Amino acid sequence: MNSIKRIHIKKISRSATLDKTDVLAVEDPLEIQTIHTNYNDGSPKSLSITMRTPGHDVDLSIGFLFTEGIINAMSDVASAMQVSPNHVWITLDEKVVLEEASLERNFYTTSSCGVCGKASIDAIRTNSNYNIADNAFQIESDNLFRLQEALLNRQSVFNETGGIHAAALFNKNGELLCIREDVGRHNALDKLIGHALQENILPLSAHVLLLSGRASFELIQKAGMAGLPIVVAVGAPSSLAVELAEELGITLIGFLKSDGFNVYTHESRLME
Amino acid sequence: MNSIKRIHIKKISRSATLDKTDVLAVEDPLEIQTIHTNYNDGSPKSLSITMRTPGHDVDLSIGFLFTEGIINAMSDVASAMQVSPNHVWITLDEKVVLEEASLERNFYTTSSCGVCGKASIDAIRTNSNYNIADNAFQIESDNLFRLQEALLNRQSVFNETGGIHAAALFNKNGELLCIREDVGRHNALDKLIGHALQENILPLSAHVLLLSGRASFELIQKAGMAGLPIVVAVGAPSSLAVELAEELGITLIGFLKSDGFNVYTHESRLME
Repeated sequence: MNSIKRIHIKKISRSATLDKTDVLAVEDPLEIQTIHTNYNDGSPKSLSITMRTPGHDVDLSIGFLFTEGIINAMSDVASAMQVSPNHVWITLDEKVVLEEASLERNFYTTSSCGVCGKASIDAIRTNSNYNIADNAFQIESDNLFRLQEALLNRQSVFNETGGIHAAALFNKNGELLCIREDVGRHNALDKLIGHALQENILPLSAHVLLLSGRASFELIQKAGMAGLPIVVAVGAPSSLAVELAEELGITLIGFLKSDGFNVYTHESRLME
Repeated sequence: MNSIKRIHIKKISRSATLDKTDVLAVEDPLEIQTIHTNYNDGSPKSLSITMRTPGHDVDLSIGFLFTEGIINAMSDVASAMQVSPNHVWITLDEKVVLEEASLERNFYTTSSCGVCGKASIDAIRTNSNYNIADNAFQIESDNLFRLQEALLNRQSVFNETGGIHAAALFNKNGELLCIREDVGRHNALDKLIGHALQENILPLSAHVLLLSGRASFELIQKAGMAGLPIVVAVGAPSSLAVELAEELGITLIGFLKSDGFNVYTHESRLME
């Protein structure tokens, strides 16, 4: 499974036309299927189709199930297996109770889509198991200034293609712990959270999440599901991202640069 | 309905912390409901929930129904009405045949998601009414160099917030005809195509589409539904965007700058 693809292109400028080899970020559908002995006669049932960059597909599938609130812990997963380049099977533990409605709901998420198939506006919200508002984690601003450089040093596929998002996890000292990349920013974050869940390090209560692009509602919601106290975006946040971060108790930072950033919510976690 | 929201933030740099007023792009859910006398007892039925930037919501709803293949022309729409800040009702003409499956499929699209609710990978594809491969439309490269400047001059909400996507329509001479903005790139394009459908100018066979960000599969699919022969992205295309453009006969250009660009497919539409 390749994350990048090489093709021949024409590079046109005012002075010349050149034949060139270019590198693209791969976008390809992944179908996440769940198996549960008590439902659908134990046959695999399509839960979601997402346009993603191949790689870490089991992390992505487990992270998606967790941030959607379908599973709460790895003990809810009996097995997880990539059965073909475009299919992952997650066998759920018998104790997991699936809502019939969610089983009937097939959802297709494009390369930038987080959560799909909700029946009404009220149903968009998921509920986190973790209380972030009371988390007294703090970080020095100086350690945040360094994050972007660490991201640029490590974000390999992005550097080659210019077409991919990253979600990266840092500790209190600004040290990079894990990074995941994808054409879909929600997928990059689900891969990261799926990895953390399998490593048994949730909630991520002493961690900083860095997002390579903008911060939207769905990304803050996923961060909340993982218990993250600080979310830092290289780009702009949306209005609803700020409102949700305020409500969940998440410190939301945007427009991160090497010498400054904007703080939108819960600034008390920042130390000089 | 506001597209931007003003809030108070802290701006932190190495030397100082400043209180500042900042401007955010608004992200808010819109529920698109369809009414059809032959289905659901003629009651409004939720078709999609999308995270969008308020404004041009009827354009967005009509564009979404069209690019999803649910309607084929404005004659399929009996009426379209914004009934609340977060709800649009589209009354379909009696002759429109709805697949039961699509009615049962509620889909929620986040601020960067295009098409949701498909039941399998094969069902992701929609079919365009227009043949683009045989379209002999051509444009001079010089006219493409100018597009980005035109976009930056007009993209108002983007300029203020740094957090929004634009889709813009140009003619053969590189003149801007219409622009739509949204936190979701697929929404910006649906707003543009919904507007064009209401103006009765489809197929957009002598037009150039400019996208402010990257080009993904779903954007090329929507462009194909509108019959667009040339798609130009400021950012990178994904692998699947290039494959679909190749197949549909769309000239796909990426990394547009004021003095150059990359051509990925069907370069014969470019004149020196």
